[in-house]
Amino acid sequence: MTTKQLVAQIIKKKSFLCIGLDVDLAKIPPHLLQEEDPIFAFNKAIIDATHHLCVAYKPNTAFYEAYGIKGWKSLEKTINYLNEKHPEIFTIADAKRGDIGNTSTMYAKAFFEDLAFDSVTVAPYMGKDSVEPFLAFENKHTIMLALTSNEGAFDFQTKTVDGKELYKQVLETSKSWKNSENLMYVVGATKAEYFAEIRKIIPTSFLLVPGVGAQGGNLQDVCKYGLSENIGLLINSSRGIIYASKDENFANSAAEKAKELQTQMEVILNN
Amino acid sequence: MTTKQLVAQIIKKKSFLCIGLDVDLAKIPPHLLQEEDPIFAFNKAIIDATHHLCVAYKPNTAFYEAYGIKGWKSLEKTINYLNEKHPEIFTIADAKRGDIGNTSTMYAKAFFEDLAFDSVTVAPYMGKDSVEPFLAFENKHTIMLALTSNEGAFDFQTKTVDGKELYKQVLETSKSWKNSENLMYVVGATKAEYFAEIRKIIPTSFLLVPGVGAQGGNLQDVCKYGLSENIGLLINSSRGIIYASKDENFANSAAEKAKELQTQMEVILNN
Repeated sequence: MTTKQLVAQIIKKKSFLCIGLDVDLAKIPPHLLQEEDPIFAFNKAIIDATHHLCVAYKPNTAFYEAYGIKGWKSLEKTINYLNEKHPEIFTIADAKRGDIGNTSTMYAKAFFEDLAFDSVTVAPYMGKDSVEPFLAFENKHTIMLALTSNEGAFDFQTKTVDGKELYKQVLETSKSWKNSENLMYVVGATKAEYFAEIRKIIPTSFLLVPGVGAQGGNLQDVCKYGLSENIGLLINSSRGIIYASKDENFANSAAEKAKELQTQMEVILNN
Repeated sequence: MTTKQLVAQIIKKKSFLCIGLDVDLAKIPPHLLQEEDPIFAFNKAIIDATHHLCVAYKPNTAFYEAYGIKGWKSLEKTINYLNEKHPEIFTIADAKRGDIGNTSTMYAKAFFEDLAFDSVTVAPYMGKDSVEPFLAFENKHTIMLALTSNEGAFDFQTKTVDGKELYKQVLETSKSWKNSENLMYVVGATKAEYFAEIRKIIPTSFLLVPGVGAQGGNLQDVCKYGLSENIGLLINSSRGIIYASKDENFANSAAEKAKELQTQMEVILNN
């Protein structure tokens, strides 16, 4: 998918919501556990109920790998379902991968070719030759961790490196990498005050923003400083939407939560 | 596996060799492609021929994920084979994972419980709460990236952070994390001159050292500065061993290459 197509979808749906499909068998409605593939059954119901309210889905691979081959099959069924039924939706493999050159190419093949995601999240620690192999794939997007939403972000990311915080060095440096136009960045909503600074470095890049809702981030604050001329934001909510209820109507409850966020986004986009 | 058991195995085998099982179907002997599971057939042959010469095996997950569910099955068969036939051998899932707390726990379950590896590699960028969930598993080891063997290591890892290189900050900081005795670190052999400095910060921690052989690192240099009182080194070689030949005798060729390294290690351990 091209960035232009993503922006067109945002304008059409009046939404820049991304729904995180982080499926924990201990948290889904108990009646689904009787299904042959409870994880996929859950995802399918959530997708059917919310696809008109969001522009992206983001399964976090940890939740699938934890169930071994069965989990990997659920992930495959989920991405196939999305690509068949809703090809206009932007798909994100939240995998936070990164390795030396040739090995990163194998990860890129896993997520861009074998599973056919539109994008994958990567970690920056190993530098240029660990990320460029992902950037080489046409019409695919590589979403690099910049400033994450957790407490541990303050351990290294905000430390000063040669006069500038590490996350800013990561943003600056990555701009010179080959095919850097295929880069997006993860910036946590819990650090809304940082968005103005970030936009000085990368004025138009799309930012994937976790941390709204359950983690305490505020949508209005993020948009105030983070919106760009091409919108440039994908706001992720996982637990706040998908675990809205545990009863048989869980998918409707999820849709209600998604609608709340979409409505707020519509107001913001209209202003 | 405890660190004590790992050290005992090193002393018994006179080897601190780790063999990287990075299986690329384009590089394995062509006759194996007729097998039902070529990747596992390759790994099994390599393990059968080399298990007495090494103390650890390290499949890099990228090479398995690139083949989707089939690849994940090959990985599962490989770790099961190792745990059944050679339970004394230290196993490393080279996965370079890392995510926020609860999600890291899911990754830890994937590699420590579902696949029953002894250890997993992780990335430090997201800080303490992304790594501590791995450290909570008893008799399991978390191998954190410190200074990697690739060119991109100079993008961020060697940059000065508050008066000290980032990789040193990572080493220092991680020592205060809960259960930090379960930490090992990745330090590339291509940067042998850094080992003396690293040993000042972490005098006894085990270091997983990629980059000997194909990437140009030198075993003697690494050992000169990197050996600790409990040995503290696992030297990894992947391509230099497993792709020694493409003919029907590939496993013997791999064993010869492994034997060369083991013999050098025996000389070093005897001195």
